[in-house]
Amino acid sequence: MLLDCIKIVLVETSHPGNIGATARAMKTMGLNRLCLVAPKIFPHPDATALSSGAEDVLINACIYPSLSEAIADCHYVYGTTARPRDLTWPMFSPSDMVLEIKQQIPAKIAIVFGRERTGLTNDELWLCQAGVMIPTSSAYRSLNLSQAVQIIAYELFKQLGDLDVSSGHIDEPLVNQAAMAHFYKHLEEVMLGIEFMQADEPKRLMPKLKRLFNRIPIYTSEMNILRGILTQIMRKTDD
Amino acid sequence: MLLDCIKIVLVETSHPGNIGATARAMKTMGLNRLCLVAPKIFPHPDATALSSGAEDVLINACIYPSLSEAIADCHYVYGTTARPRDLTWPMFSPSDMVLEIKQQIPAKIAIVFGRERTGLTNDELWLCQAGVMIPTSSAYRSLNLSQAVQIIAYELFKQLGDLDVSSGHIDEPLVNQAAMAHFYKHLEEVMLGIEFMQADEPKRLMPKLKRLFNRIPIYTSEMNILRGILTQIMRKTDD
Repeated sequence: MLLDCIKIVLVETSHPGNIGATARAMKTMGLNRLCLVAPKIFPHPDATALSSGAEDVLINACIYPSLSEAIADCHYVYGTTARPRDLTWPMFSPSDMVLEIKQQIPAKIAIVFGRERTGLTNDELWLCQAGVMIPTSSAYRSLNLSQAVQIIAYELFKQLGDLDVSSGHIDEPLVNQAAMAHFYKHLEEVMLGIEFMQADEPKRLMPKLKRLFNRIPIYTSEMNILRGILTQIMRKTDD
Repeated sequence: MLLDCIKIVLVETSHPGNIGATARAMKTMGLNRLCLVAPKIFPHPDATALSSGAEDVLINACIYPSLSEAIADCHYVYGTTARPRDLTWPMFSPSDMVLEIKQQIPAKIAIVFGRERTGLTNDELWLCQAGVMIPTSSAYRSLNLSQAVQIIAYELFKQLGDLDVSSGHIDEPLVNQAAMAHFYKHLEEVMLGIEFMQADEPKRLMPKLKRLFNRIPIYTSEMNILRGILTQIMRKTDD
């Protein structure tokens, strides 16, 4: 699995709950390799509770005393930062980082997240080849640690995972324009039949109804219902 | 601000901590309008604690007894779902949904998130015009509620954060969901009145008609025509 080339590294996390929530965030996006650098409190029941069904990620987490040891086996290392630093250094958005990673795998990749309040030190950032900055509102930039991991994990999975979300279509035949023409003819007859429209007056109604129904792709089953309703209206008004 | 057109709706959230974490997730991405439908426990210290610096989003949250009331003023409603439903219904990935929304704003948009364990009911999904499904690993799909909101908020901010209001346009007012609810009620009365539908039989007709009309944004002038036709049908069949 492609995503197994990528590890998530958390540096000196204070709250064990954030470690658990990170494990859960990772696993939803197919990431399983978690590294912890000198966590303040771990293991802890809060971590286990918040990992929900992702406890295996916690159990398999590797713990290191320093960032340099955690990333020793990696070929490319990305450091997350909440603000531009005065390092002259390539800086990517999450989606652009994943485009880079796409070129780099199956090399081993690490993505590093700093402390809850203070992030990564400059020394730690210098261990990374590039930075990644999640775009945030200028009014409030304070992403929770596990939320930041969730966004990065989502971008990785979106571009590198096996997506099975096919966006938006319904697997059912649509009616063609010939069927639409028959429908409009039927609709016009009914509009005359119920005297909502007079045959001799300027027919402004039909263009408006066509404008409406032409905006929707209509499925065959739906057209059958619409035609059935029109037939029933005429039957009842003829009574 | 463009993102002010968009509200996040949480339905029957069980854990107040998730409401707080959602408020924080929203604010980092410039979203401020939170609606809560029948939250189990709110307000609560856990919500406040997890909102961190986003307490203003909580304080300004609107609380409604039902989803239909929460979305009454909206023009487009997207319902999140963790799995494909057997509704034949347009389904978007988060990024494709935002592409759609880009065309729709400054219309009012709601994005609806269901209960922690069970999501939205089918009846609630029928109140939405389209679905959005966050891609997740087939091995573990259990996204935390606030993490799901974070991903959607991130996609919105990424694509819409820099746009200003003038880039969206609608040259004619669209009807909101309250008007759609009135229309469906009227339509159902007419379907019963013309005996196209029996009151005591399983009502499979109305969901199908809703699926059809929910796919189109309907202009006020068009709704007036549709309501006029319904009124006229009843007048003629009562003759």
